[in-house]
Amino acid sequence: MAPNDNLTAVLYGIEDLRLENKDIPSIKDDEVLLEMDCVGICGSDIHYLVHGRIGDFVVKDKMIIGHEASGIVQKLGKDVKNLKVGDRVAIEPGVSCRLCEFCKTGRYNLCPDMKFCATPPYDGNLRRYYAHAADFCFKLPDHVTMEEGALLEPLSVGVHACRKANVQLGDSVLILGAGPIGLVSLICAKEMGASKVIITDLLQSRLDVAKELGADYTYVIPKDVTEDELVKKIHETLGNAPNKSIDCSGAEATNRLGLQATACGGCFVIVGCGPPEVKLPLVAAMAREIDIRGVFRYANDYSAALALVSSGKANVKRLITHHFDLTETLDAFDTSRYGKGGAIKVMIHCQPRNKNNPKAF
Amino acid sequence: MAPNDNLTAVLYGIEDLRLENKDIPSIKDDEVLLEMDCVGICGSDIHYLVHGRIGDFVVKDKMIIGHEASGIVQKLGKDVKNLKVGDRVAIEPGVSCRLCEFCKTGRYNLCPDMKFCATPPYDGNLRRYYAHAADFCFKLPDHVTMEEGALLEPLSVGVHACRKANVQLGDSVLILGAGPIGLVSLICAKEMGASKVIITDLLQSRLDVAKELGADYTYVIPKDVTEDELVKKIHETLGNAPNKSIDCSGAEATNRLGLQATACGGCFVIVGCGPPEVKLPLVAAMAREIDIRGVFRYANDYSAALALVSSGKANVKRLITHHFDLTETLDAFDTSRYGKGGAIKVMIHCQPRNKNNPKAF
Amino acid sequence: MAPNDNLTAVLYGIEDLRLENKDIPSIKDDEVLLEMDCVGICGSDIHYLVHGRIGDFVVKDKMIIGHEASGIVQKLGKDVKNLKVGDRVAIEPGVSCRLCEFCKTGRYNLCPDMKFCATPPYDGNLRRYYAHAADFCFKLPDHVTMEEGALLEPLSVGVHACRKANVQLGDSVLILGAGPIGLVSLICAKEMGASKVIITDLLQSRLDVAKELGADYTYVIPKDVTEDELVKKIHETLGNAPNKSIDCSGAEATNRLGLQATACGGCFVIVGCGPPEVKLPLVAAMAREIDIRGVFRYANDYSAALALVSSGKANVKRLITHHFDLTETLDAFDTSRYGKGGAIKVMIHCQPRNKNNPKAF
Amino acid sequence: MAPNDNLTAVLYGIEDLRLENKDIPSIKDDEVLLEMDCVGICGSDIHYLVHGRIGDFVVKDKMIIGHEASGIVQKLGKDVKNLKVGDRVAIEPGVSCRLCEFCKTGRYNLCPDMKFCATPPYDGNLRRYYAHAADFCFKLPDHVTMEEGALLEPLSVGVHACRKANVQLGDSVLILGAGPIGLVSLICAKEMGASKVIITDLLQSRLDVAKELGADYTYVIPKDVTEDELVKKIHETLGNAPNKSIDCSGAEATNRLGLQATACGGCFVIVGCGPPEVKLPLVAAMAREIDIRGVFRYANDYSAALALVSSGKANVKRLITHHFDLTETLDAFDTSRYGKGGAIKVMIHCQPRNKNNPKAF
Repeated sequence: MAPNDNLTAVLYGIEDLRLENKDIPSIKDDEVLLEMDCVGICGSDIHYLVHGRIGDFVVKDKMIIGHEASGIVQKLGKDVKNLKVGDRVAIEPGVSCRLCEFCKTGRYNLCPDMKFCATPPYDGNLRRYYAHAADFCFKLPDHVTMEEGALLEPLSVGVHACRKANVQLGDSVLILGAGPIGLVSLICAKEMGASKVIITDLLQSRLDVAKELGADYTYVIPKDVTEDELVKKIHETLGNAPNKSIDCSGAEATNRLGLQATACGGCFVIVGCGPPEVKLPLVAAMAREIDIRGVFRYANDYSAALALVSSGKANVKRLITHHFDLTETLDAFDTSRYGKGGAIKVMIHCQPRNKNNPKAF
Repeated sequence: MAPNDNLTAVLYGIEDLRLENKDIPSIKDDEVLLEMDCVGICGSDIHYLVHGRIGDFVVKDKMIIGHEASGIVQKLGKDVKNLKVGDRVAIEPGVSCRLCEFCKTGRYNLCPDMKFCATPPYDGNLRRYYAHAADFCFKLPDHVTMEEGALLEPLSVGVHACRKANVQLGDSVLILGAGPIGLVSLICAKEMGASKVIITDLLQSRLDVAKELGADYTYVIPKDVTEDELVKKIHETLGNAPNKSIDCSGAEATNRLGLQATACGGCFVIVGCGPPEVKLPLVAAMAREIDIRGVFRYANDYSAALALVSSGKANVKRLITHHFDLTETLDAFDTSRYGKGGAIKVMIHCQPRNKNNPKAF
Repeated sequence: MAPNDNLTAVLYGIEDLRLENKDIPSIKDDEVLLEMDCVGICGSDIHYLVHGRIGDFVVKDKMIIGHEASGIVQKLGKDVKNLKVGDRVAIEPGVSCRLCEFCKTGRYNLCPDMKFCATPPYDGNLRRYYAHAADFCFKLPDHVTMEEGALLEPLSVGVHACRKANVQLGDSVLILGAGPIGLVSLICAKEMGASKVIITDLLQSRLDVAKELGADYTYVIPKDVTEDELVKKIHETLGNAPNKSIDCSGAEATNRLGLQATACGGCFVIVGCGPPEVKLPLVAAMAREIDIRGVFRYANDYSAALALVSSGKANVKRLITHHFDLTETLDAFDTSRYGKGGAIKVMIHCQPRNKNNPKAF
Repeated sequence: MAPNDNLTAVLYGIEDLRLENKDIPSIKDDEVLLEMDCVGICGSDIHYLVHGRIGDFVVKDKMIIGHEASGIVQKLGKDVKNLKVGDRVAIEPGVSCRLCEFCKTGRYNLCPDMKFCATPPYDGNLRRYYAHAADFCFKLPDHVTMEEGALLEPLSVGVHACRKANVQLGDSVLILGAGPIGLVSLICAKEMGASKVIITDLLQSRLDVAKELGADYTYVIPKDVTEDELVKKIHETLGNAPNKSIDCSGAEATNRLGLQATACGGCFVIVGCGPPEVKLPLVAAMAREIDIRGVFRYANDYSAALALVSSGKANVKRLITHHFDLTETLDAFDTSRYGKGGAIKVMIHCQPRNKNNPKAF
């Protein structure tokens, strides 16, 4: 690896991901240059590779992929005060405009001028060198690994989802879906004081991981069972109706199930994707005063995610099932895409493993 | 009217409403006996008359109708301390169990053992004499009329809806539907500080009343216009997207319109009825972090509703378009049911008009 | 122990606590008769014994002492549905009026007609038999001991304090005072997601227990140190200013320290007693937008406290340092009053130990 | 007035305010150059003139005074998109760092790197030309005068105070002090739905203005009356205890009175200055679960303040008692300082009056 080698993963279009060398970016006064270390693959990365779009976000030009990342500070813009060269950092991948009503009221994830890594038309950070706003970099303590730093990204989605659901001490929580987002939501719900969490999925293997991570109950959704029976089963298992539910699957079936299973006066949070139109038994839920709340990424959640990991409470390491070098990016994507070898989270290393980990992963 | 005459409106079944004499009820230690004065007709009363049910609430036995009411305290149970004989009171028509989690946490409208007037199997109060829990009676000041006392019931729905929507100083608000609930929501939104309210309906005549009651903008929903065009029109009229929307129509079309018109990060409240299943463009709303919140009746809202009327801020009198004597109940229901004479709110008088109003209506 | 023996601890006045036999109470329709099992001694019990009053609450007549208690259901009032004979229950000791604004809005701890065990003029429950409102009894699972049931009372104060402080995932928390209330607040703060808790006291021995219970940092307040130095030391130890602080000491010195140590925009909660007047550097705190919030007992906190204990998260057993039989009540009070043998929580048993514990303490 | 004349009011030190010509400032990419129009005199301006400091903020170097202001956009920085040349704007005088935790969570008033006009060491805007961050300028509609634009500054304090107090529909509110901040808090409390507001002061003349602005009750605090009697009088006048109180006086006496007068479970907000140490009856207030909340300036309140004025609801014009030209600045300060001619708000005009008002003041 030559010093000026900036190997970069570029999505040229549907099913066309390439590795190529790029110039090392210059930095603005409020930015840092980062030597990238770890980058996790997210479902959205796969979605852009396969479909070229997510909703209204369309890959029109080639775009660098990657947004779940950590790196090492190499150079400081002249206004940067919060970091120094050599700092190991987690990268919050969205940089908002700082000027609009959403930015000023603490909901910067809704900023219409958000520049978010690997959401078109903005480039991501699966590369050797990358420039980022310094205030969206979070210095990692020595005992937190670069891998964990990269995982703060999905973990922040879990923090945001559980905060939106207002998970409280003593709550009963239903989590629908045991993929990476379901699993981090589980971790957060338990750490925010939920006394009982039930998590559902179609695959027993994912639920086994959930059990390891602290799920009180797991439930493989069987086929050919009515909604009413599913609701009844969830209530019986928990001993009551969940007062908070979080849908991390994004299917019409889980939208419906979550809405119907949630207790009177409770809250049902929906994270991320799903079909453009869904048919819902809305009026009954409204008469039970269920709140339905959407989650879009995160805002002001990285600190809490870091505190969770740093304190040892959140075993996010368990999510990582596969490691690849940056040069093996295409294999990494294949593994993640097809769930090879029981893949949950696939991590790509832009540096030799453990090079930047005082405490090895 | 003989002293012991307790003329009572009894719903025997679908399309079978009868007036008949009943015994004067006895009272429990925490109840008062009320000489009923005004009772308004609500859409739900009509619905039970026509369909015999609302959702899971089915009229199986005959049931006394009426729940928007005011009366005069005639007799006190031995534990009653908050009232005295002769007090003019508004009647909050639901008496909750006081023991369950919902009652104890301030959300008694969700109490599973709620006894609510004219929701089967519980009798209502369209009659001359009626016993009610004293703590759910609100003493009216002299200058508030018995008619206004009865109107605190729908007004409380408006208070509850606007509180659920968290209407704040400076908000832009969209109200869908200009029936009685839409109109009281409009009043409350303005009094809670909304700077701009737009209200929609299919009928210009209802919107004319909305304009009198303080609507900044009104909009007759035209036929053959796409959802996108409706959204655009609402945004242009307000000058921005409403950050709070309240659906008082309960149709799939307004559910969809409200969801799409609401600003990023805003709140969409759905009051009351609607079809059991609706098709919704949910994922886009969730990605904009719209909260969807249900409203079921009200809880702890009567005091604020009374303060609104008492201070002269809420011109609820404007809602009353027709007056009938208790003996004319069937005509009253016909007027309300078919909207005869531009009926908005039809009031039934169990006593001679203004008998109990120090300041005449 | 004869079947009708109702040995009872009666406070006749200052320094005059007596054991005497009393009639077994009759029960109302919504009450249960309880065979009392465990009753913990609280600082307020000692205060009434020594001073005969707490603030405006004055022991004028003789009063039965005790309010941190658990028991076994012996008999049911005719309206009781939530319990059955033989149920092992924790007793929430205050029964509110259920009718006032505070009761209806979920803040029943502020009910002006609250009947609270061993707060004059209401009798407590340190006796063999006691009647209590059924809805304020919480059924214990088999694996939760009667001792833990009694400890739900102080634990609920901790839950209430941490909820008032709005302790959140990732918070830094300062707890002033490591007596029983400080310790339960520590437990709750950790379980609600605080990443770092520092707790202070004058005695190292209490802080040793705090360390066992999960405190990240402990700090013995030295003598002859300025407020500024104490604040600096707390900030250095935590690595930042605590965004939430909870004063469980109730001294002017800790009121001042908590106010000054709390981070900008943070929250400072004050639990319980203290001198009637304190001198505070208020304006600086107000300009930093610190919220100061009071805590009075608890409301709707028993369920969460029970969930904490039931799940094994809250090791409240560690608080109990001494056990006495009901017949040894005076010795028990002496032990608690003078902190003999490092007493933290002294438990009085109205039944043979472990008689009602399927899983022995 | 020559085109390049930038007459400027400079505070050289205690009792040393001078007018002098300065260079017209250059602008950064995100700034606009403003031709200043109206600048109101605030109590803090007087305080710096007389004492040279407010708390820890000390005037060490000469400093331009003025921060309640409006102006006309003359030139745009190259990144500015929200404004155009000729726009009439109100100026939110504090520009925060946009990078810190407070800025990102919507509480930018607590930003430690805040640059606030005429808070040392930052210059104010009582001058002919001034450069300001474009996103902290609010475009005024044609019917809002430049004077009203300047008054958005104190009005925003009222909005912030009432939001902190969480003033709600139906609330009873006590406001202590009828100076400019007390009066704007009164306006906001009423517009947020307070049903009854009582306002107190030592001077009847100020209360007369409060009455004009919508106070339901006014109360001149008499001398030689005990705190208990004052509390009783306030409760009797309102008909109940205020559930929200706002202290706009900042004296120990009003701190104490507000704390004791506030209803159980209520909220007491303290705005601004006061003596460094106060003696308070804290424990009784804590046992009644009163929240005490501080207010420091405002954050995200200008929009609502503008909506209030724009809709005609807030008659802030009534606050202005005197007008001076920029060249008469010293007279203006004298008038404000000594309350000459019943001065409430003194306005300084940097341009000929009504030059920039399409609708004359």
